[in-house]
Amino acid sequence: MSESAPFSADSYFATQPPPASLEHDILGVREFVQQQLKKDRNVVLVTSGGTTVPLELNVVRFLDNFSAGTRGATSAEYFLKAGYAVIFMHRQFSLQPFSRHYSHSTNPFLDFLEIETPPVASPDSTPQICVAKEKREDLMSVLTAYKSVQASGTLHTLAFVTVNDYLWLLRAVSQELSALRRRALYYLAAAVSDFFLPRQKMSEHKIQSGKGSLHIEMDQVPKILKSMVDEWTKDGFIVSFKLETDPALLIPKARAALKRYGHQLVIGNELHTRKYQVLFVTPSSHTSILDDSVDEDSAFTETWLRVDIPSTPSAVSQKEIEEDIVFELARRHSEWINEKKL
Amino acid sequence: MSESAPFSADSYFATQPPPASLEHDILGVREFVQQQLKKDRNVVLVTSGGTTVPLELNVVRFLDNFSAGTRGATSAEYFLKAGYAVIFMHRQFSLQPFSRHYSHSTNPFLDFLEIETPPVASPDSTPQICVAKEKREDLMSVLTAYKSVQASGTLHTLAFVTVNDYLWLLRAVSQELSALRRRALYYLAAAVSDFFLPRQKMSEHKIQSGKGSLHIEMDQVPKILKSMVDEWTKDGFIVSFKLETDPALLIPKARAALKRYGHQLVIGNELHTRKYQVLFVTPSSHTSILDDSVDEDSAFTETWLRVDIPSTPSAVSQKEIEEDIVFELARRHSEWINEKKL
Repeated sequence: MSESAPFSADSYFATQPPPASLEHDILGVREFVQQQLKKDRNVVLVTSGGTTVPLELNVVRFLDNFSAGTRGATSAEYFLKAGYAVIFMHRQFSLQPFSRHYSHSTNPFLDFLEIETPPVASPDSTPQICVAKEKREDLMSVLTAYKSVQASGTLHTLAFVTVNDYLWLLRAVSQELSALRRRALYYLAAAVSDFFLPRQKMSEHKIQSGKGSLHIEMDQVPKILKSMVDEWTKDGFIVSFKLETDPALLIPKARAALKRYGHQLVIGNELHTRKYQVLFVTPSSHTSILDDSVDEDSAFTETWLRVDIPSTPSAVSQKEIEEDIVFELARRHSEWINEKKL
Repeated sequence: MSESAPFSADSYFATQPPPASLEHDILGVREFVQQQLKKDRNVVLVTSGGTTVPLELNVVRFLDNFSAGTRGATSAEYFLKAGYAVIFMHRQFSLQPFSRHYSHSTNPFLDFLEIETPPVASPDSTPQICVAKEKREDLMSVLTAYKSVQASGTLHTLAFVTVNDYLWLLRAVSQELSALRRRALYYLAAAVSDFFLPRQKMSEHKIQSGKGSLHIEMDQVPKILKSMVDEWTKDGFIVSFKLETDPALLIPKARAALKRYGHQLVIGNELHTRKYQVLFVTPSSHTSILDDSVDEDSAFTETWLRVDIPSTPSAVSQKEIEEDIVFELARRHSEWINEKKL
């Protein structure tokens, strides 16, 4: 069994083909960034949802990362509310800001529409279809925020499916956002595949079952966070996420990432408590966290953000932790922007 | 490397735990079936969407089958229109009848709502939210069909995620539908995993990357169609699907399935043309298709159903092939029911 050499970011992009929509997507982003520069706005790139690894060229099966996109879609709404322009780069069909409240499975919009009987019978008019009275207030706040964002042009949406789409898009979007320098915030909430099948290893046709057990051998996806920090971005504030199922690994892995990649902040969360608590991990100061003589515990700062666990699963007006995450990040990003001005 | 013995249906259910919601789900199905028996309705079980194979007990990664659920959700609407009661057993969050027309990505409903300025200012009333005039007609037909189905109680919805959920649910639902004898139609459009990871082989925690390449070894999912025909159902009309990427395999594999499992019909389709053409494959007569002395081409009947390929991708009033599939199936199912009465 031959093992191919691990992929670096460079060898990845040299060997894996870009998605067909890349050129078109980047023109849209470039235009959007220009608009925000004129309006003097901060811009956040929110990545959201899981990436896939197709197992065949004619995709029937794929490896996926579990992610409804709740964190990203919810955060995007609060970033918009906080005055940011948002590039929302999400897994196709995963949750989006605003429409996330109306999942067809759990809160189908067809249920709150009523057909109005017209007061006077009119031969050529279709009856009105309106939102039921008891649903109006709830929908009103979401709808007005949605229309306001459309009017101000502060939300730009992109979609990816495969990890390959994602990597090409992330690189290109980051390069466009470099024009914003410190005013760019990168909120990398997407659940990115750690392993993939290089195109050269993929079979064209559906892998036929009936062959006993299935063996899949995959290569590691190159760690592109290093490339983001060193090459693709320019002074932006970069936030990555760590999702763990074993709480004991959270702090060590967050610290290791900061040491390894040199970005600004890691948001750590544990699978089962991620809606109620998250951990902000940052380097403590401008002292190098790579300095072995500095005690590790002093080299990093860890802060838990927590919200109350709702008393019932469907408790009304339950605070969403993303409101606090975004508030805190906006504050830190402001400091980051002002650091330069000193 | 040790290979475990292949799973039979029996050893599968003996070793893999049922989903927590099974009991509750089955009570709901039982009630629904009772209602339909009273109303003398035919019932179709439509399965739809892909099943997943989790790779860890705390699910972070999973293997998935590509399936938006278009075939199943669209067919369910036409079955309802044709007077069937429908049990819609679908992958959670995949397309559903009616709401399928309003994907948040491609046709977001928030875009066709308007906030009405009240004619007379009223201090205590929230403004109405109504559907924009140009969208009314389109939405009206879907909304009236939706409300009619709700009123008649002819649609029962169930959700699965993993292949394990799916297998347990399929068995239980089939057993409940046996009460309907020939009046039960099984429309198995779900994209079911061919391979899975037995619970005993799953790791508890997220598989850590950083270990070079990833190797996944999976077992074959037992072919439960045999159990459906022989044990779980009673004289129902069973339709299975075959999705291929290589057109040359379509007929051979459809015929092999009919020979192997002994059910009534296979709908074959090729990945790239499935929206415009499907192949109905059935045994030609009551002569046994297992009889080696009969020429194979005479032992089976193949019929293509086709619709026009739209001239533009968004051509209005494009006929959906599911309308023809359902019409033809309803006809054959009627014949099947009447066979018994002779």
